[in-house]
Amino acid sequence: MSLNEFSIIERYFYSLGKRKGVSLGVGDDCAILDIPADKQLVTTVDTLVEARHFPLSCSPGDVAQRALRVNLSDIAAMGAVPHWFTLALTLQTPNEKWLHSFSEALESDALKFDCTLVGGDLTQGPLSITIQVFGTVDKNQAIKRTGLGLGDHIYVTGKLGAAAAAIACFEKSTQPMSLISNKVSEHLHNKFFRPEPRIKEGIILRNIASAAIDISDGLIADLNHILRSKSYGADIEFKLVPYEDFLIDIADKDLIQEWTLTGGDDYELCFTVPEKNIDLLERLIYEKKIHACYIGKVTENPGIRCYDDQGNLLNLGKSGYQHF
Amino acid sequence: MSLNEFSIIERYFYSLGKRKGVSLGVGDDCAILDIPADKQLVTTVDTLVEARHFPLSCSPGDVAQRALRVNLSDIAAMGAVPHWFTLALTLQTPNEKWLHSFSEALESDALKFDCTLVGGDLTQGPLSITIQVFGTVDKNQAIKRTGLGLGDHIYVTGKLGAAAAAIACFEKSTQPMSLISNKVSEHLHNKFFRPEPRIKEGIILRNIASAAIDISDGLIADLNHILRSKSYGADIEFKLVPYEDFLIDIADKDLIQEWTLTGGDDYELCFTVPEKNIDLLERLIYEKKIHACYIGKVTENPGIRCYDDQGNLLNLGKSGYQHF
Repeated sequence: MSLNEFSIIERYFYSLGKRKGVSLGVGDDCAILDIPADKQLVTTVDTLVEARHFPLSCSPGDVAQRALRVNLSDIAAMGAVPHWFTLALTLQTPNEKWLHSFSEALESDALKFDCTLVGGDLTQGPLSITIQVFGTVDKNQAIKRTGLGLGDHIYVTGKLGAAAAAIACFEKSTQPMSLISNKVSEHLHNKFFRPEPRIKEGIILRNIASAAIDISDGLIADLNHILRSKSYGADIEFKLVPYEDFLIDIADKDLIQEWTLTGGDDYELCFTVPEKNIDLLERLIYEKKIHACYIGKVTENPGIRCYDDQGNLLNLGKSGYQHF
Repeated sequence: MSLNEFSIIERYFYSLGKRKGVSLGVGDDCAILDIPADKQLVTTVDTLVEARHFPLSCSPGDVAQRALRVNLSDIAAMGAVPHWFTLALTLQTPNEKWLHSFSEALESDALKFDCTLVGGDLTQGPLSITIQVFGTVDKNQAIKRTGLGLGDHIYVTGKLGAAAAAIACFEKSTQPMSLISNKVSEHLHNKFFRPEPRIKEGIILRNIASAAIDISDGLIADLNHILRSKSYGADIEFKLVPYEDFLIDIADKDLIQEWTLTGGDDYELCFTVPEKNIDLLERLIYEKKIHACYIGKVTENPGIRCYDDQGNLLNLGKSGYQHF
């Protein structure tokens, strides 16, 4: 069967758009969405380009899920709830097998995160995927990057470093990589392509955090984005920064430090908490309502200083992912 | 000065995001937008890929304006009012001159159409521009593609055929093209890169049209999108279909017919009007409140038939733009 734009949309993408809260979805000039009167609309967009953001050999399902999840992570960083998304897909040649795997994986994640496809565009060209996610948040309750204060405590959710290790693994550029087991390799692959957007954590943090960001460019670079808005700095203790346990089996101290501090792509949240909310947050951590670690404090002195066990300053080298 | 993602956003795109109705725009994880309680959100996305949607030689300002306007045209087709947009820009190598022209032209159109940049993404790869526009419409007042009825009159705004003539001109595939004057060539160029989104017309048509679509794939193909939703057909009289006067100077009858009926890219509106609203519409046309022409009627018999002056059926050949 020959595939054209309309038959592709009908066969592979219509079923993703048949759900709640959509007045008009896939198939008209625009989508029409109802935003409840007590909510604000929150929206974000990210493009993944073949060879730049994912390896050429990578499976369509992996690409689809990563493309959706990196956007969901931005929604999470605002303390918002995702509801809908659009997909602008550029393909060199339409291929039934590719489209089937891509749309199936996308549908699976769309269901998992309760996020409905409401429109998009399909064009011919070098493979790239642009997803725009729409969510809502109670009025004036979103966590912004600019709310932090002097002396605020800095926290990170989950564990860092796995995504950077995965990239090293794809590139086979790191010697110890040859030693990793299939199980670790699969874990790395999953961490890179299926990062867990911290939506639940973002919602909890809405009344606790003064600022939040998702770690896409690396802990130091992203923390810097928050600090810059107020010309503040931060003191970080490396021993407090949480990283994946298995990294010590596959890399030396310097590499672990690099992956953890500047690696990026883990999509955990980095957030700041004012003194008055620390007890509440620590109780939620103790009760396992949220998995997060204290890593340092916001300072008046600009720049980020990271100290090792002996109190020596670490050399942070490159400070984060640069898109150019 | 070296250009990275953040310096590019700051230098070229911040000034586009400093306007009304935006709680939080460029520079956070997400944009936050306020949708008034009596409105619905309307949104659409379109990607332009180099060499596929615009010639390699084309100026950055032309690309920027076309990318925004084709999206505004979708908003117009719903009878909605555009307010905000996001830009996902993929560039091979950042170039100050290119970025300056691109952002300057985009800003000029953003001001003209009162549409504010609220976020985006900047990535490295083959040149492509994905714009998503957001608008609002009074609750349940949007014009959908599916509202048409049997016997409805079919209308088209403006004049068709110039964009298809422009493409033939770019491709230099058409013999008579060598005869066109610089003035006509410039006019064609403008019609292609700066189509006029029919926003004012869409708003007027909200209480008049039963269905509307913007003509991007060609009159026949787009009219067919409307008709398909009800399995209806249409009878069209070619002599009533409005096309640019200057086409007769540069092309023969068959070519004019092809450009007008199947050419696409003109971004005029094709809409249907029920009997009860005809008088009102015709009065608005007479008073020059809206520029539109009657071209035919919706029929029970599926398919589109186009007749010439003698009542003979025209052969419509290819029926519209196929993206693959």
